[in-house]
Amino acid sequence: MSQTNMKIFEELESEVRSYCRSFPTVFTKAKGYKMWDEDGKEYLDFFAGAGALNYGHNDPHMKAKLVDYILNDGITHSLDMATAPKAEFLKTFNDVILKPRNLDYKVMFPGPTGTNTVESALKLARKVTGRTDIISFTNGFHGMTIGALSVTGNAFKRKGAGIPLQNTVTMPYDSFVSESLDTLEYLERFLEDGGSGVEIPAAMILETVQGEGGINAARFEWLQRVEQICKRWGILLIVDDVQAGIGRTGTFFSFEKVGIKPDIVCMSKSIGGMGLPLAITLIRPDLDIWAPGEHNGTFRGNNHAFITATASLSYWEDDKFEKDIQERSKRIYSFLERIVADYPELEGEAKGRGYMVGIASQVDGLASKVAAEAFERGLIMETSGPNDEVFKLFPPLTIDDEGLNKGFEIIEDSVKAVLGARELVTS
Amino acid sequence: MSQTNMKIFEELESEVRSYCRSFPTVFTKAKGYKMWDEDGKEYLDFFAGAGALNYGHNDPHMKAKLVDYILNDGITHSLDMATAPKAEFLKTFNDVILKPRNLDYKVMFPGPTGTNTVESALKLARKVTGRTDIISFTNGFHGMTIGALSVTGNAFKRKGAGIPLQNTVTMPYDSFVSESLDTLEYLERFLEDGGSGVEIPAAMILETVQGEGGINAARFEWLQRVEQICKRWGILLIVDDVQAGIGRTGTFFSFEKVGIKPDIVCMSKSIGGMGLPLAITLIRPDLDIWAPGEHNGTFRGNNHAFITATASLSYWEDDKFEKDIQERSKRIYSFLERIVADYPELEGEAKGRGYMVGIASQVDGLASKVAAEAFERGLIMETSGPNDEVFKLFPPLTIDDEGLNKGFEIIEDSVKAVLGARELVTS
Amino acid sequence: MSQTNMKIFEELESEVRSYCRSFPTVFTKAKGYKMWDEDGKEYLDFFAGAGALNYGHNDPHMKAKLVDYILNDGITHSLDMATAPKAEFLKTFNDVILKPRNLDYKVMFPGPTGTNTVESALKLARKVTGRTDIISFTNGFHGMTIGALSVTGNAFKRKGAGIPLQNTVTMPYDSFVSESLDTLEYLERFLEDGGSGVEIPAAMILETVQGEGGINAARFEWLQRVEQICKRWGILLIVDDVQAGIGRTGTFFSFEKVGIKPDIVCMSKSIGGMGLPLAITLIRPDLDIWAPGEHNGTFRGNNHAFITATASLSYWEDDKFEKDIQERSKRIYSFLERIVADYPELEGEAKGRGYMVGIASQVDGLASKVAAEAFERGLIMETSGPNDEVFKLFPPLTIDDEGLNKGFEIIEDSVKAVLGARELVTS
Amino acid sequence: MSQTNMKIFEELESEVRSYCRSFPTVFTKAKGYKMWDEDGKEYLDFFAGAGALNYGHNDPHMKAKLVDYILNDGITHSLDMATAPKAEFLKTFNDVILKPRNLDYKVMFPGPTGTNTVESALKLARKVTGRTDIISFTNGFHGMTIGALSVTGNAFKRKGAGIPLQNTVTMPYDSFVSESLDTLEYLERFLEDGGSGVEIPAAMILETVQGEGGINAARFEWLQRVEQICKRWGILLIVDDVQAGIGRTGTFFSFEKVGIKPDIVCMSKSIGGMGLPLAITLIRPDLDIWAPGEHNGTFRGNNHAFITATASLSYWEDDKFEKDIQERSKRIYSFLERIVADYPELEGEAKGRGYMVGIASQVDGLASKVAAEAFERGLIMETSGPNDEVFKLFPPLTIDDEGLNKGFEIIEDSVKAVLGARELVTS
Repeated sequence: MSQTNMKIFEELESEVRSYCRSFPTVFTKAKGYKMWDEDGKEYLDFFAGAGALNYGHNDPHMKAKLVDYILNDGITHSLDMATAPKAEFLKTFNDVILKPRNLDYKVMFPGPTGTNTVESALKLARKVTGRTDIISFTNGFHGMTIGALSVTGNAFKRKGAGIPLQNTVTMPYDSFVSESLDTLEYLERFLEDGGSGVEIPAAMILETVQGEGGINAARFEWLQRVEQICKRWGILLIVDDVQAGIGRTGTFFSFEKVGIKPDIVCMSKSIGGMGLPLAITLIRPDLDIWAPGEHNGTFRGNNHAFITATASLSYWEDDKFEKDIQERSKRIYSFLERIVADYPELEGEAKGRGYMVGIASQVDGLASKVAAEAFERGLIMETSGPNDEVFKLFPPLTIDDEGLNKGFEIIEDSVKAVLGARELVTS
Repeated sequence: MSQTNMKIFEELESEVRSYCRSFPTVFTKAKGYKMWDEDGKEYLDFFAGAGALNYGHNDPHMKAKLVDYILNDGITHSLDMATAPKAEFLKTFNDVILKPRNLDYKVMFPGPTGTNTVESALKLARKVTGRTDIISFTNGFHGMTIGALSVTGNAFKRKGAGIPLQNTVTMPYDSFVSESLDTLEYLERFLEDGGSGVEIPAAMILETVQGEGGINAARFEWLQRVEQICKRWGILLIVDDVQAGIGRTGTFFSFEKVGIKPDIVCMSKSIGGMGLPLAITLIRPDLDIWAPGEHNGTFRGNNHAFITATASLSYWEDDKFEKDIQERSKRIYSFLERIVADYPELEGEAKGRGYMVGIASQVDGLASKVAAEAFERGLIMETSGPNDEVFKLFPPLTIDDEGLNKGFEIIEDSVKAVLGARELVTS
Repeated sequence: MSQTNMKIFEELESEVRSYCRSFPTVFTKAKGYKMWDEDGKEYLDFFAGAGALNYGHNDPHMKAKLVDYILNDGITHSLDMATAPKAEFLKTFNDVILKPRNLDYKVMFPGPTGTNTVESALKLARKVTGRTDIISFTNGFHGMTIGALSVTGNAFKRKGAGIPLQNTVTMPYDSFVSESLDTLEYLERFLEDGGSGVEIPAAMILETVQGEGGINAARFEWLQRVEQICKRWGILLIVDDVQAGIGRTGTFFSFEKVGIKPDIVCMSKSIGGMGLPLAITLIRPDLDIWAPGEHNGTFRGNNHAFITATASLSYWEDDKFEKDIQERSKRIYSFLERIVADYPELEGEAKGRGYMVGIASQVDGLASKVAAEAFERGLIMETSGPNDEVFKLFPPLTIDDEGLNKGFEIIEDSVKAVLGARELVTS
Repeated sequence: MSQTNMKIFEELESEVRSYCRSFPTVFTKAKGYKMWDEDGKEYLDFFAGAGALNYGHNDPHMKAKLVDYILNDGITHSLDMATAPKAEFLKTFNDVILKPRNLDYKVMFPGPTGTNTVESALKLARKVTGRTDIISFTNGFHGMTIGALSVTGNAFKRKGAGIPLQNTVTMPYDSFVSESLDTLEYLERFLEDGGSGVEIPAAMILETVQGEGGINAARFEWLQRVEQICKRWGILLIVDDVQAGIGRTGTFFSFEKVGIKPDIVCMSKSIGGMGLPLAITLIRPDLDIWAPGEHNGTFRGNNHAFITATASLSYWEDDKFEKDIQERSKRIYSFLERIVADYPELEGEAKGRGYMVGIASQVDGLASKVAAEAFERGLIMETSGPNDEVFKLFPPLTIDDEGLNKGFEIIEDSVKAVLGARELVTS
């Protein structure tokens, strides 16, 4: 039966489809960290919608609120008109998230996607500064529309633009060249030398941990120096927290413990709580010089997502959730380090921060094989990095110990199986 | 109470917010063509989410399907993995929409917004042809991300980019210069003269009726000649049916009666049925040369929207719905013509096609005043055009005669009131 | 012997060489309107360095001045230091050319080429207005460096850039679409409609008669309206008089009789008098906001050219030269009209103004054949237009009646020969 | 009298003029390494037309040849028709320069300026590779037209473009960040990492010694590694030898001793021998895929310059000239090192190679003061570098010991005077 239904996609859907190729089955149900396909097979979800399902699938509290709202004929679609759920979200977000962190950002609702919040941030930075260039970083990923793609590093994705991508300069991310080489010394020379060919940009945009780019976690000192450089030159600092935010690295914002205050923050993915499309752009109040409607979009007011987003914020009313993540993420990292140590044939390196971790293998194609093997064994896991060299552990933040343990087991078995098969071939 | 709640938006939301300024109240409920605010005041919705609510608010059938799905823990978020609701949507869309119209498009799911389907179409056209330029048309509107904005005409919106918008050439839309001037003769001269400075483009992108650009309906002959020109020069024809599609002009696709077959079709807004974020890009099968993941996005698989989208297609299983629209749209147009005739001080012109109509007034600022007045009287209506010179009638396609009549009455009263007030001032 | 020497070019010079292919002989001497090759064969020069030799080859007066200067060790190269010949040129140009015409332009010396004066003009226009776009016109030719190429229409030349050419919009030149269609109505609609996708540009750049583009002479009314449009919208008007200036159309500046005053004028080619590299950019004094060295170039002070340029201005001390040109150019045009009338198989049209004229033939390839035939008979003549459909009469302005008559004879004989040969083939 | 004549420039010439401000007198005569102004004051020329006068002013042999040619009515202007002097130049250049160095470049004549040869090189590199980007280096200077300016580092000059400069990436030149930091390790990481945001470019363009950028001489190992990187990635290597070529660094081509073979070489300035405008682009034969006329220009055949260029090549018929330069350049460098040592208040560093040397002073504004002082004392000398921090010794290569000694004396006196004056102020 699955076979039949997979054919529908082959026949009717565009060749651009991708994840349905890595995970070739038709999914029907999901709950927490589990998914089921139409044959009833159960999967552990260590992918979590690439960070869109930090609270797991179909959280009962959010679900109840949403169903209730729908049954009462609450407004579904409203562009950016004022609605009760939007007011509620704004108020709760301010009370639960911003105020306790001493933040006073204005909230903008661009179209409900990550690429859209990035586009809005770039536009605003250019408007505020009157400059055209943006500095982005190697292996950064910010989206697939032309503005966001221009600050994305991946060559395959950039080539897809079909036009030269302009008005951006890529600088080396932390440890891009080697552990010892100071990439910010390099960057700053370009800014301070009037003959460098690099203009003072409107903004720098970065992820504190690069998800798509290969689970690269920038050191706190590096991020702090980036902020200092931005301040020194009057450059806006945009943190794209679409994937690293909402608890993924241990705190609501990925930069909280770094001690920096970005001028603009891009959020999407898990901000909607239950996987519904939503994005917000947080703006330092004095930079909020938008003219009304200067950036807009039909679905910028997704009321269903406001309902679930507001409900999701209850996770952050005290520090329990955060502590849980931080506690458990140590276990995850230990597991990865053990795997790297126990299986030297992996030529692996544990990478990342919080629940945004993985193992980079220097063996060509190995990470993909491990992920494929894991899928066979009932675990969904993605690869990332410029050569798909990293297999990525991205479970929901709400996963329990049982789920984690079971996941670890499958991953280790998959590693063993792949290495075993390899040995057979090479010996 | 409303006052209190509007303050939340002023305090916490970015200055970019716009419709909440034109319609300054907090909405709570909606059903069919009606909306209610928190004070219980009822409004007729002649705006319909700028075309995202063609089936009205909270259609009971769609609503029931959606609630049922949620209660059963159906997959909510799945990137572009294969899911049962997606299969169902693909199959139904093929059976109910494509096949009966002799169309064999492949369906692509870009991010769930109009701008995203446009960006995907432009990328694909450039990839297929190996060319960089796109021809767009005066007063076209295609979205707010840099790629889509580059083919959008509006100066205010373009300026918001903060960078020069490139790789596009704007040609005059039907009747842009004057009724008598043949804009396609111009366009074709540019293509055929090797010294024109205009390269043969990858594609032309257009709306058959321009919504944001001032309710300009291109004549069928003009559209047919555009298609011929595209064929002659090997240029792809992209129809952006985001706003004009899904019945808005009387047929599912706005181009059905024109007798043209675009190479790529962009759809969003009402494709999701109930106002949930969804977008699709329809691609001539031989042009579907995407590499997997060459364009992607976190919310390209919005399963809630698949459920309501599939449910919405039942409207199209026979020709009843279509006939209703076509019948009733004549009444709407007659009403507009009568208003123009009866109120010469409007200096008005009835414009548009189907349920995508309005009155352009040559009196500066008048259209906005009529819309504001209508809002006071309980009707929601938008203005459009480069100088907001058109007030736009955009009711749900499911509106009944009672709703229409009541709407007409409010509009006529508003026109009277505005003209009356004006007379007082000028006399 | 010629054969041997042509081989040197084939072996050692790049494939980019072009005129030596149309005129395959090695030239050694020249005087007035005559050239000789190494076999002593004489040629009438109806090409005049594409307008760089308006005073003919090796004018005795200029030559004497130059030799004298060299023998006295006058400064040859000086970047833009102050030198006596430069002072002399500035003073004479002001006294003989600018003042009598009530013009008060500041004189800028960019690099000594046409493309360089155009690049300087575009930079300055962008600096003065703070805008980025330039409007150029179909079949305009302004140079081959990226800035100037961006405002050049020819597709083959544009493609040579290897990158998309940006920040420019091409508008239709006078009579581009057809005689009856008003191209400026079109242009102005784009400027006045805020949804046109065309920004108010920094400048418009145009030739009053397009040389490379096919000898298209804009009507005076058209040029006057362009100036009015520029004034209305605060757009700078740049006239590229590189080819049409210095008497080529009957007056020193091609726009004198039109009654317009461009904001910036680009001059090169014959400004140096004897064919030595020189270019000047004339700037309305209040626009001369250059910072020192903001545009520069190693050869912007070519003192040899200052000597010959100053000497050449003696032609303009009274109106004799001008009257001669105007008188004789009537004869030239009459000749062309007669040829068109007498040889209907040419499907020809006489085009142009002054000594910048030619016949456009609708018969594919015919113009090139006539030019080749003329070369065999001892007359040098170029073709132009997007399809090389025009053969161009471009004799020195100093040509006498004998030279003209002889030239006419060769041209008529060439036309006859080509048409005769054609008849043989087609009959 | 001088005063009167300087006024002519103030009144009639554009504000863009620059060197006439640093050297405020009107020059009339020049011979070898000497110049005289209209008051008869003599100057030593340690500027040499920024490298355009490597053979000094008005070399008697070249002068004689040129006068003879003019008196015989040799062709002056010929676009790119075949002429005897061009054949002679091609042959001599091949025999005297290319063949003995085992080079087989094809010779292209772009317009007669440095910026034009660079523009032609970039176009060809893009055509050959089908790629759009060019990698240039910090503090590189390649010209002022938009294409060449895009690969130029200087912020002030780039800003003058008035538009974003595109399709280029700036990489750090040798020692840009610090002595110890390996800039090519950075560069190569960007090329090898598919997520770096930097595409494989069509070409890299560089000067082996940067003149305008501050007399930065790249180490030979660095240049060799650049060539290796280019080969590894199929990138064309363009050496811009406009300023560093023609003996300036000790050999005809600046890269001869480095042991690299660029794919394209740009030459201008001294190639014409006597300071007459000329430029050539040397092209690896298999890359010479230009279509005829794909790049052109009115003055690409400057026959006067062919005459003097051919005459100048006699300097290279044996190795005497080269040895002289190399010998004497050691003396120059020793002098600079002594000055740096003897005057620590200069906070100076000797820089450069051959006759392309200078002292960089860390004291703000000091280099300009030394140059101004030297002018007062009868020596012409330029400053360079992003902050004009270097005073540049650029005498003709033909200077004799007497000239050098006198120059050294003036420079040392100027340094003393400036430092003395400074002491007075600060003590």
